[in-house]
Amino acid sequence: MTGWIAIAGIGPGDAALVTPEVSAALEQASDIYGYGPYVARVPAREGLTLHASDNRVELERAADALARAAAGGGVVVVSSGDPGVFAMASAVFEALEQGPPAWRDLDIRVLPGITAMLAASARAGAPLGHDFCAINLSDNLKPWSLIERRLRLAVEADFAMAFYNPRSKARPDGFGRVLDILRKACGGDRPILFARAVSTPQEHLRVVTLGEATPEMADMRTMVIVGSSRTRLIARDGAPIVYTPRWAP
Amino acid sequence: MTGWIAIAGIGPGDAALVTPEVSAALEQASDIYGYGPYVARVPAREGLTLHASDNRVELERAADALARAAAGGGVVVVSSGDPGVFAMASAVFEALEQGPPAWRDLDIRVLPGITAMLAASARAGAPLGHDFCAINLSDNLKPWSLIERRLRLAVEADFAMAFYNPRSKARPDGFGRVLDILRKACGGDRPILFARAVSTPQEHLRVVTLGEATPEMADMRTMVIVGSSRTRLIARDGAPIVYTPRWAP
Repeated sequence: MTGWIAIAGIGPGDAALVTPEVSAALEQASDIYGYGPYVARVPAREGLTLHASDNRVELERAADALARAAAGGGVVVVSSGDPGVFAMASAVFEALEQGPPAWRDLDIRVLPGITAMLAASARAGAPLGHDFCAINLSDNLKPWSLIERRLRLAVEADFAMAFYNPRSKARPDGFGRVLDILRKACGGDRPILFARAVSTPQEHLRVVTLGEATPEMADMRTMVIVGSSRTRLIARDGAPIVYTPRWAP
Repeated sequence: MTGWIAIAGIGPGDAALVTPEVSAALEQASDIYGYGPYVARVPAREGLTLHASDNRVELERAADALARAAAGGGVVVVSSGDPGVFAMASAVFEALEQGPPAWRDLDIRVLPGITAMLAASARAGAPLGHDFCAINLSDNLKPWSLIERRLRLAVEADFAMAFYNPRSKARPDGFGRVLDILRKACGGDRPILFARAVSTPQEHLRVVTLGEATPEMADMRTMVIVGSSRTRLIARDGAPIVYTPRWAP
């Protein structure tokens, strides 16, 4: 029996945003590994074993999944969004590099998905339509000083900025500091998008200015996008459209 | 007759990377607008009018598509990759903002897709697994000085960098200057990925160092990704895996 492992992006929530490539891998798998709420999105069927685990155990999960593939399993590791953006692909490669050399001979594929910032951007308009950056605001795996440094340089470069993991119960305070830094660097008028649970029944979008933004507008299911100096709003009935023009003077 | 317009991402090439949401919109449409090679990827059928246009006419195409929707059409504007990343969504909103106020009442949706950098990243491993930025290297719509400034700040922030439109027949020289700037700022050992025509029969991936990179390795179908200082290679039979760990010291 020859094993394989695919690290697959199941998108932000709606089944209509899962690629056929990922759906096919899920249908062929013998074993699914992932964070509980993501594994719960995979339809159960006979012959499929679901291995749900907690968050913060990505490296152990990755090693377990690689070992199962090495033992002949057809393994899919599921990530929400895209597996290559603050998700499981890097964790699997960290485990691969540290693990037995034989793991390197495995059939390993990464299957891309719709990442949260692009789903959120699409719902709001096109705030990432010009040059932009993506920053993980969690300091679980990097020092807070590095986050602040990157924020300041991103503003100086006039990137639109997409923020993953802005705030959680374990990290309630950092995001307020982020808003303070951005208000000081960009002024209070810059548009900021809070996009919660995009494409799910709990979806909620809010567009405010940096001056109006408060930390409580974000939680662990919220994607935050801050415009560049060029980002504009188009007023219309209902929510405005937020977009960044393609050109810059 | 009530018109609608969807700006839809048809991914990098492979039909298995088109979301069901986009496929459904293409099936419901009366009119498809887009750059010729992208429109050619939409299956023809009775009742569907294909409006293929040249590149560099994005704003005219967007206005035509909006006018058709305002006249009652079910319109899909197709972009390769994701429509919100250096693609048609911003062009449509530019045209919307400049156009008749009645256009703002249209049913307008942006349907996300698998953008080139995430397809390329998945094929190579996970080079964008930590903080990163995306820069359009074309100076058609912004001054070259802004590109150079963003490159220097992105290196200073130690972002991995995804470059769209690195080089074309009309702009053969800029990319050599980009490589010079990056070699000076990052040294010659940094990994750089050239991913051409990902997910199509012409797909070709090459991983070299900045010291080995030459301008000719990129053309208009190539996505270029330069690692951060933390990006690593895992040697194995065949192409190495390129990935950026989730953590930073």
